[in-house]
Amino acid sequence: MSGAGHGPHLPASIVEKAVADALAEDLGLSGDITTHATIRAGTRASGVIAARKAGTVAGIQLAETAFKTIDPFAQFEIVIGDGGAVEAGGIIARVAGDARALLIAERTALNFLGHMSGIATLTARYVAAVAGTKARIIDTRKTTPGLRALEKFAVRCGGGVNHRFGLFDAVLIKDNHIIAAGGIGDALDRARAYAGHMVKVEIEVTNLDEVDEALKFAPDALLLDNMSPDLLKAAVAEVAGRAVTEASGGVTLETVRAIAETGVDLISVGALTHSAPVLDIGLDFNAQS
Amino acid sequence: MSGAGHGPHLPASIVEKAVADALAEDLGLSGDITTHATIRAGTRASGVIAARKAGTVAGIQLAETAFKTIDPFAQFEIVIGDGGAVEAGGIIARVAGDARALLIAERTALNFLGHMSGIATLTARYVAAVAGTKARIIDTRKTTPGLRALEKFAVRCGGGVNHRFGLFDAVLIKDNHIIAAGGIGDALDRARAYAGHMVKVEIEVTNLDEVDEALKFAPDALLLDNMSPDLLKAAVAEVAGRAVTEASGGVTLETVRAIAETGVDLISVGALTHSAPVLDIGLDFNAQS
Amino acid sequence: MSGAGHGPHLPASIVEKAVADALAEDLGLSGDITTHATIRAGTRASGVIAARKAGTVAGIQLAETAFKTIDPFAQFEIVIGDGGAVEAGGIIARVAGDARALLIAERTALNFLGHMSGIATLTARYVAAVAGTKARIIDTRKTTPGLRALEKFAVRCGGGVNHRFGLFDAVLIKDNHIIAAGGIGDALDRARAYAGHMVKVEIEVTNLDEVDEALKFAPDALLLDNMSPDLLKAAVAEVAGRAVTEASGGVTLETVRAIAETGVDLISVGALTHSAPVLDIGLDFNAQS
Amino acid sequence: MSGAGHGPHLPASIVEKAVADALAEDLGLSGDITTHATIRAGTRASGVIAARKAGTVAGIQLAETAFKTIDPFAQFEIVIGDGGAVEAGGIIARVAGDARALLIAERTALNFLGHMSGIATLTARYVAAVAGTKARIIDTRKTTPGLRALEKFAVRCGGGVNHRFGLFDAVLIKDNHIIAAGGIGDALDRARAYAGHMVKVEIEVTNLDEVDEALKFAPDALLLDNMSPDLLKAAVAEVAGRAVTEASGGVTLETVRAIAETGVDLISVGALTHSAPVLDIGLDFNAQS
Amino acid sequence: MSGAGHGPHLPASIVEKAVADALAEDLGLSGDITTHATIRAGTRASGVIAARKAGTVAGIQLAETAFKTIDPFAQFEIVIGDGGAVEAGGIIARVAGDARALLIAERTALNFLGHMSGIATLTARYVAAVAGTKARIIDTRKTTPGLRALEKFAVRCGGGVNHRFGLFDAVLIKDNHIIAAGGIGDALDRARAYAGHMVKVEIEVTNLDEVDEALKFAPDALLLDNMSPDLLKAAVAEVAGRAVTEASGGVTLETVRAIAETGVDLISVGALTHSAPVLDIGLDFNAQS
Amino acid sequence: MSGAGHGPHLPASIVEKAVADALAEDLGLSGDITTHATIRAGTRASGVIAARKAGTVAGIQLAETAFKTIDPFAQFEIVIGDGGAVEAGGIIARVAGDARALLIAERTALNFLGHMSGIATLTARYVAAVAGTKARIIDTRKTTPGLRALEKFAVRCGGGVNHRFGLFDAVLIKDNHIIAAGGIGDALDRARAYAGHMVKVEIEVTNLDEVDEALKFAPDALLLDNMSPDLLKAAVAEVAGRAVTEASGGVTLETVRAIAETGVDLISVGALTHSAPVLDIGLDFNAQS
Repeated sequence: MSGAGHGPHLPASIVEKAVADALAEDLGLSGDITTHATIRAGTRASGVIAARKAGTVAGIQLAETAFKTIDPFAQFEIVIGDGGAVEAGGIIARVAGDARALLIAERTALNFLGHMSGIATLTARYVAAVAGTKARIIDTRKTTPGLRALEKFAVRCGGGVNHRFGLFDAVLIKDNHIIAAGGIGDALDRARAYAGHMVKVEIEVTNLDEVDEALKFAPDALLLDNMSPDLLKAAVAEVAGRAVTEASGGVTLETVRAIAETGVDLISVGALTHSAPVLDIGLDFNAQS
Repeated sequence: MSGAGHGPHLPASIVEKAVADALAEDLGLSGDITTHATIRAGTRASGVIAARKAGTVAGIQLAETAFKTIDPFAQFEIVIGDGGAVEAGGIIARVAGDARALLIAERTALNFLGHMSGIATLTARYVAAVAGTKARIIDTRKTTPGLRALEKFAVRCGGGVNHRFGLFDAVLIKDNHIIAAGGIGDALDRARAYAGHMVKVEIEVTNLDEVDEALKFAPDALLLDNMSPDLLKAAVAEVAGRAVTEASGGVTLETVRAIAETGVDLISVGALTHSAPVLDIGLDFNAQS
Repeated sequence: MSGAGHGPHLPASIVEKAVADALAEDLGLSGDITTHATIRAGTRASGVIAARKAGTVAGIQLAETAFKTIDPFAQFEIVIGDGGAVEAGGIIARVAGDARALLIAERTALNFLGHMSGIATLTARYVAAVAGTKARIIDTRKTTPGLRALEKFAVRCGGGVNHRFGLFDAVLIKDNHIIAAGGIGDALDRARAYAGHMVKVEIEVTNLDEVDEALKFAPDALLLDNMSPDLLKAAVAEVAGRAVTEASGGVTLETVRAIAETGVDLISVGALTHSAPVLDIGLDFNAQS
Repeated sequence: MSGAGHGPHLPASIVEKAVADALAEDLGLSGDITTHATIRAGTRASGVIAARKAGTVAGIQLAETAFKTIDPFAQFEIVIGDGGAVEAGGIIARVAGDARALLIAERTALNFLGHMSGIATLTARYVAAVAGTKARIIDTRKTTPGLRALEKFAVRCGGGVNHRFGLFDAVLIKDNHIIAAGGIGDALDRARAYAGHMVKVEIEVTNLDEVDEALKFAPDALLLDNMSPDLLKAAVAEVAGRAVTEASGGVTLETVRAIAETGVDLISVGALTHSAPVLDIGLDFNAQS
Repeated sequence: MSGAGHGPHLPASIVEKAVADALAEDLGLSGDITTHATIRAGTRASGVIAARKAGTVAGIQLAETAFKTIDPFAQFEIVIGDGGAVEAGGIIARVAGDARALLIAERTALNFLGHMSGIATLTARYVAAVAGTKARIIDTRKTTPGLRALEKFAVRCGGGVNHRFGLFDAVLIKDNHIIAAGGIGDALDRARAYAGHMVKVEIEVTNLDEVDEALKFAPDALLLDNMSPDLLKAAVAEVAGRAVTEASGGVTLETVRAIAETGVDLISVGALTHSAPVLDIGLDFNAQS
Repeated sequence: MSGAGHGPHLPASIVEKAVADALAEDLGLSGDITTHATIRAGTRASGVIAARKAGTVAGIQLAETAFKTIDPFAQFEIVIGDGGAVEAGGIIARVAGDARALLIAERTALNFLGHMSGIATLTARYVAAVAGTKARIIDTRKTTPGLRALEKFAVRCGGGVNHRFGLFDAVLIKDNHIIAAGGIGDALDRARAYAGHMVKVEIEVTNLDEVDEALKFAPDALLLDNMSPDLLKAAVAEVAGRAVTEASGGVTLETVRAIAETGVDLISVGALTHSAPVLDIGLDFNAQS
């Protein structure tokens, strides 16, 4: 439900630029020679965007923008919006307009919709797997280069939550930073002194000693890296609400439930954005005279 | 082996722009606040880029550019170049330079390398599955928006061949074009009249009657869409070398061998670019005083 | 007839960018100081775009976009569209709108229209000169830097056909490639192995021995470079339909008919895009209160 | 002699952007497939850039930048710099470097050099035609869209002088402005009031009455439009040094001398930039092992 | 009165780019998270843009564009346009539209309006201080990087006049140029020879001898740098109308009147653009259901 | 101390783009015509960048980049780096290189350095005014459009701390959000649910009741808007460390000490970025033969 209520949000300028870049890549400087050769100007057409498999929709705004960039007068009716569940065969949207435009924009629209819905669908499966626990599923910076804003939006469409956007909007102190800084305490001290009051600070820890050490410096969050469920449970008990806890490493659809049941607040999953298969979505086209 | 011999080729301007865009996305306008807070300026470091799982490398040029964009004096030694096979644990490259720069560029470098190597690795598995047949594995336009040049390059690193790049560089007449044009013959006639002499023309057919109809108009290639292996075999026999034959639809690692054995020239696989999981590659970091 | 039927096609995004760049170049950061000083805001005007000499129109879409970029509510009526013939004094279009906007956009509109119509007009003269033969007139990569898409479109408006767009969309093996590759056969072998199935391959030959040598490797086309009409005729006979034949070198309006009568399929003319004089087109302006 | 002494000047950032855009147009997203297929990586080559016909050189800086953009280590020796005269067959520059790079950049380099030298050559012919008079040859805003900076530079290389760059840097009141402003006096009054003290004001006049009317308002220059030589002579006498005089309209290589002999200060020639044929310049290539 | 009559003028493309850049800076890739979290989609709102202190308005076009970029259907009523005087508490504009959009664009709109009105307000104070003299207040190239077009426009809104825009549109020979050229005469000679007839030439002088020396070469204007009022008066008498006179250096609101009374034509004030405090302008917001 | 230790940080890509944009604005498409006319190519020069008044330096990296963009071989020696204090007359840097380049880049370099040092200097005065209290001086989003990254960097050079960068990286709930959300509690609830765990949440309150209400929902920070020192003191006591406290509104160099002594953690000052006068910095130039 893009833009409605308090759903995930994607600035229009981001959408327009992403679509323009993708169309430019497909059209080159000569445009769609097949369509111009074979389809008479002025031909009208309509189409139905339908899922071939069940999943969660994300990216409908990009699909709409792709069609309307080529045909500003195209009509686009959203049946299932961003974040909605679609069955196999279910209709996601209807589009009507200039036949050439529909064929020109089709692949760009579907590439966005399939990629983003693939991420939303995988996210929704992880979210479902931890239902009933307090754990939330979050993403990482392991995104496809250039598409981070779209992919983090898709994670939210699937019911996940976003980690920091990039290197600039929050402090996440990892093992290498700790080594270079000379220890957990020094690293946290420096981070607090450097960061403004609106910047959160998280630090990676790998055992209970490090948890204790870190807690002395009041970080906002602890990244519990590659811990077993038993160790996670102990760490959560040790933290006792003094910081947000994030589990990371070795998370799969098979292991995520056990991790969630340790009581961690957050579970980060790189695969959401780096390895989600496309959701198979197609356009059923109807040419008109 | 990027740039060497007659391997796949990626213009430097494409690489530089892709890396600059990805770094901008990660750095925002404030840069890496964690690294600047915790690591002293002037600290040196080195690292080893290693595969966590076996696969085929692609994108090493982008990883190198990521590091050198942040630290122009960084040293980057390629151990396994584009198209090379790497074992689990195998070293792909070594990098040394400013410690801050290495940590800033790490994720961008790995995101490119993992994504592109994931595509190369999946392509190589398809190529291996058809070994000994004449069939070649080719990609489609079902690519991640904005990354088509990189992804088509990665397909070649994996031993695949590229289909047309976009809508502009070759004619591919699909079912909807045929309907709108009024038939196979009309569509092919118009395409030939419209396209210059350096543009190839392919047309989609779904049964033997359409094969016969299309061959009357001497297309360069036939897209045999969603045919069973038996039907493919019959179509190949019917074509008898008068056009290049491409099988498409329902291709998986399980089915691809049988399809190849029908004698088709090409097998196109959308999954190469829309559903390849990342190849897990990491940076092992060594800080120095 | 821009966009109508199956005429030449120019993507809207290309048109908009070209016009925006040209207006920016003319307006700088301060805009049209003469018009703002001398013409009162709100003044209306109309104008007639007319040819001072006879020719073939190309670029009407760019002229329209120039006016509408400055005054989105300007009215623009096309009298003779792209590809149409205009007599000396003939009206090409009528424009009406804000007087300031018309004067601001005038030169940009006319610069595009004059340059592109100049190319179309020269192309049409070459096409007329070979009328009745099977030869088609084609362009080259000798285009004005940055304007290739517009110039190749103009060639089509003049009845010509486009050669490859650039270095990326087809293989054209020239003398220097042959030398570096070690011979015609090696060069063609490598090109075939490297290029996908949708990429055509042409090779330059300069005598009948090279024609024979090349034909062994089944290129799609032969570039018969700088051959006399007699030699061209012999080459065409030797080829006997096994490849498309293109004559190139020394082509002028005086020589082109004789070349066409040798039976070649294509005659490429660099002058179409590098030396066509402008078609003299002006705006007759009527200010209104 | 670009950059030397007080010759014409082109900012480096303009050169780099123009070359990058032209290369991008030629290379697309896949690069030069012919060269990568046929020429082995690491091959070295050299070449000589030579004029096929006599003329005046302009654009050598762009040619050099084209080669060095593809091969940063290419060597480029300028034999005849911008503004220099070259004989038919004369060597303009020598280039050496990576063989692939030379072939990739060749057409872009020559397209710039040929186009700009064509303008310089035509300008030099006009300048020669008025030798011994006080008249200087100047350009107009009738330039190829997007290339104005390069073309105005080429005019200077040919010995011409530049008129205003665009609509923003000087006031030129034409007939339509006068009509809309309600007369010559009102137009000049408004222009002076609007323009800063560093902006010159020129006005178009077509007869002696308008000359007298305009001179009452002390314009910096008068554009004597479409006057016969006799009328021009009378106008120059009337002006008597109170303003710079510019003749425009109907200027050809045949008529320019008579116009110059009327005593006008400047003669503007649109053809310099809108109709100059290319100067034929080629690259003689030597591959090395 | 932006766009009306013959007031100062800012090309629409400059306005749109400036606003888009500023919004991008504020929105990043994730947009306004506070507004999307707290305000329900579809909420309507209106607001009043009012001055907290008295001043001169500039930049209303940018404020309007900011709101309309986020909500294309927003209504924006200008009460006091560019160049108009506003009292403390006075209403400048009314805006109504989507509540989220109003809050998202508010700061960008006010940042432009406050900055530009600050410049117009300071300019108007200088202009008032010299009322009744012939002196005009002009700006310099000491502008905020990237905002020169907007700031020079604001100076005109405040009743000032613009000096040259940049290094490219007029010649201003300063002390260092004179030294490097070998003297005033050589510098002016070279400048005249280099510059086209539409380019004005000004030269810096610091005493009466230099005034005399410069006047021999008929410059368009003299920059009388850092002269006392007495010396300025003597210089103006010496020039006797043979060139435009500009006083510069040590100009404050306290000293400007005395400088103006020396009879100089122009007084340039760097502080107009480099040190004007913001005009305090706010948005009074009314949310609606 | 740009780049050294743990000082403020500005990504190189931001610096390079800002400088390129500013140079483009000053050079247009024709470059510096005065310098090219008057100064012979190859002339060498050196210069000293010195403060005319005392202050705090910021932006030295931009000044250096300006010179090196025009002359890549220019030498630039930093005497007082970012964040350093300079006396009136004190030398900030020395530069040597091509004389033309130094004069071309001078104004751009000084415009950056003066603007940013002006901000740093004003910030340092506020910081000094609260010395000995726990209060820190922070900036706002009231920045010059397009320059936020540079201006926030300058605030840090002056000893200040940055508030959130923009709308995207932290939640700041203001009065209008509270009204539209239906109250403090609802607004905070929604913000927490919407924002990821790495995003901080601040809310504006104007009296003690609102402080109490807000604290129930555990915000990270409270913006105490337009409170008197007495009320601020009471609010700080009420908060008792449960949230960070920020005072805002009516802050001047006269009032800031009293505000700081109330015990607030932070004091935000819009004037730092919207009304700081330039720090007067000049270049003393020495031409060499």
